[in-house]
Amino acid sequence: MLCHLEMESFIAYPPNCDFPLENLPYGVFSTVNNPQHRIGVAVGDLVLDLSAISQLFNGPLLKNKQHVFNEPTLNAFMSLGRPFWLEARATLQRILAADCPILRDDANLRAISLIPQSEVKMHLPAEIGDYTDFYSSIYHATNVGIMFRGKENALMPNWKHLPVGYHGRASSVVVSGTDIRRPNGQTRPSDDAPPVFGPCRLMDFELEMAFFVGGPGNPLGKPVPVGEAHEHIFGMVLMNDWSARDIQKWEYVPLGPFLAKNLGTSISPWVVTMEALEPFKVANFPQDPEPLPYLMHHDNYNFDINLEVDIKPEGTPVASTVCRSNFKYLYWTPKQQLAHHTITGCNMRPGDLLASGTISGETSDSYGSMLELCWKGTKNVPLVGGMSRKFLQDGDEVIVKGFCQHENYRVGFGICSGKVLPAIPL
Amino acid sequence: MLCHLEMESFIAYPPNCDFPLENLPYGVFSTVNNPQHRIGVAVGDLVLDLSAISQLFNGPLLKNKQHVFNEPTLNAFMSLGRPFWLEARATLQRILAADCPILRDDANLRAISLIPQSEVKMHLPAEIGDYTDFYSSIYHATNVGIMFRGKENALMPNWKHLPVGYHGRASSVVVSGTDIRRPNGQTRPSDDAPPVFGPCRLMDFELEMAFFVGGPGNPLGKPVPVGEAHEHIFGMVLMNDWSARDIQKWEYVPLGPFLAKNLGTSISPWVVTMEALEPFKVANFPQDPEPLPYLMHHDNYNFDINLEVDIKPEGTPVASTVCRSNFKYLYWTPKQQLAHHTITGCNMRPGDLLASGTISGETSDSYGSMLELCWKGTKNVPLVGGMSRKFLQDGDEVIVKGFCQHENYRVGFGICSGKVLPAIPL
Repeated sequence: MLCHLEMESFIAYPPNCDFPLENLPYGVFSTVNNPQHRIGVAVGDLVLDLSAISQLFNGPLLKNKQHVFNEPTLNAFMSLGRPFWLEARATLQRILAADCPILRDDANLRAISLIPQSEVKMHLPAEIGDYTDFYSSIYHATNVGIMFRGKENALMPNWKHLPVGYHGRASSVVVSGTDIRRPNGQTRPSDDAPPVFGPCRLMDFELEMAFFVGGPGNPLGKPVPVGEAHEHIFGMVLMNDWSARDIQKWEYVPLGPFLAKNLGTSISPWVVTMEALEPFKVANFPQDPEPLPYLMHHDNYNFDINLEVDIKPEGTPVASTVCRSNFKYLYWTPKQQLAHHTITGCNMRPGDLLASGTISGETSDSYGSMLELCWKGTKNVPLVGGMSRKFLQDGDEVIVKGFCQHENYRVGFGICSGKVLPAIPL
Repeated sequence: MLCHLEMESFIAYPPNCDFPLENLPYGVFSTVNNPQHRIGVAVGDLVLDLSAISQLFNGPLLKNKQHVFNEPTLNAFMSLGRPFWLEARATLQRILAADCPILRDDANLRAISLIPQSEVKMHLPAEIGDYTDFYSSIYHATNVGIMFRGKENALMPNWKHLPVGYHGRASSVVVSGTDIRRPNGQTRPSDDAPPVFGPCRLMDFELEMAFFVGGPGNPLGKPVPVGEAHEHIFGMVLMNDWSARDIQKWEYVPLGPFLAKNLGTSISPWVVTMEALEPFKVANFPQDPEPLPYLMHHDNYNFDINLEVDIKPEGTPVASTVCRSNFKYLYWTPKQQLAHHTITGCNMRPGDLLASGTISGETSDSYGSMLELCWKGTKNVPLVGGMSRKFLQDGDEVIVKGFCQHENYRVGFGICSGKVLPAIPL
């Protein structure tokens, strides 16, 4: 096996840093002194403010597009397409390299463009036109199916033929760090009694990842073929699709999840590009039956991304890891999700967000939701300090982490966190 | 009964005109000579260009907000809230009145601000952040239930307890006049054979109406109480929620309609305000059981709006009316829809669009979809000239019309039309 030669930057960071020169994820941030939202790139424990160095993007493609780095969101940059993204990445890797003096030796430029991550406030990376949530883990779909319909009918007949998904609520997607209020809502605890109104009793997380759509977008009526899907995929984030299970159970037949999901959906602030994920490609999940041709691709488009969910109850010093999973457990690839989503002509816009659905693995320590971890309330999920959970309690902070591990470096996603606030009193 | 005294404008129009001084719906248009999208109001067969007369909005509230009339969408105006909308309406009714010289006697101002509707191109009235589709006609829900689950289980247990709805796709909402391409997609014609790929065979319309959300919007986590819902409702449009029934049938369990609906959703371009609809309020649909308190309101918020769907096959001179329905047949009111939608804390933004679901009446000539009119393909729906339909054919133009009839005037919505284009060849 060839040893990967680590790229070297003049910015120092340890080998287990989420944000080495090989990563360079994009995000949107502000500072106390400058509340303007601007685009940054994470490197080490710093943010490089691209609005302060936009003049350095002077390659043949970007020299006339430098304005995209002065926008308050990534949408304009996302809309440019992969050749532009590749040039931006090459430019950034060059100006951050140990042997490049442009930024390294310019104290003034460094002072205005490099900011400690601890001093920035992160925002949503893009204006999300539409948000879609798939259901692409066969283990998760099977677990939920067994719990609600029994082992015989666990997977619906369509599940292995198409990536099942639904339209989510774009307005309620929030950035990591935003508190999430336990909702009040309508539930029916007993089939023999009328429904009741009150605070959600079965508050849950869902461990997911999501990708941002890039490129100019396809017009309504014109699908994106699976062979071109990669050109429309900009990068990925961690996601926690907060779920009110008791509300969901009562509302979702026949039109799907609605209020149980639009109380908040958290994403990590740093968008890791598909270029940074390239070294972590692994074989696709075996698909049997073979999908229809419009969903078929033979190249690998699955990724080895370690995922973890921690719960940190309020006032406790230590978080407990309740789930270790991996993106590679997903049955349907992002290419298949995008090709399917557009096959009827649905138009995609740069900044649209397509999520994986809950990422559960095969073993019970890899289940991506409390619903599965506590097996519908029949098991306690132990936390450190003798505590346990079935569903989430007020004050619980849920922290999703993800990273790809190379021999000499890691490509990390940072964290996606959120704390459950008590419901508004009735 | 008091006879309503017709308001008089210096602009002449017949009594059956959709756009009298009592209506004044808002839209966004452009002209050949000025492709800039701008805000207009329909009056008679003219459009009043508000960007050309924004200086006339000099009431106490709007005098410092005239910029909202120079925007390319209605979102900024919608965000201001009802006191501003009322002042705008009063200003418009005054300057268009027969006895007001400001516009009437200023030939230059008339020349730049009044444009024949036949010379304008209409656009989407707002940037739609999120689009939600409800399922609020008890006749439609019952019909579909009978067809797919039998008479005993026609209505789902939750249906009379909450306004069932789902998140739709905002990107594929288009303005009236946009052609709609018949989608290719995955279906399973036989339960005994694998799914197949090809053009949709069961292309349908859905007669709906939708309202635009206005006001500054509620923050995530803070519901809009039913008693305040009216303040968040700007106005209404006609809608055709195009549906691919064969694709829907195969994909929709368990997460609801997805690709069967995101191939295009047409809306009429003129947003009729709730003020214009006020005289047409009628009793709410009787609700039994009584809804939970968070959904309860005692004032009327139902509207007598005559609705009609015509089909005009390609190359034929005459359209056939296949459905006559009425908004008042809806079981759940817009206030209840909005209160329910936000009860878990979902944040609304000005420009969000909330649709009624298919509006079917009790009788078979009032069913709002071909699925019901042809009763799942068991009946022919006659058209003029000896033609008939079960589902839509390529070249069919579907025209939705709607109006409220007062003794001396009507408040009309204009039309919402679209033509079915053949599927892209495989």
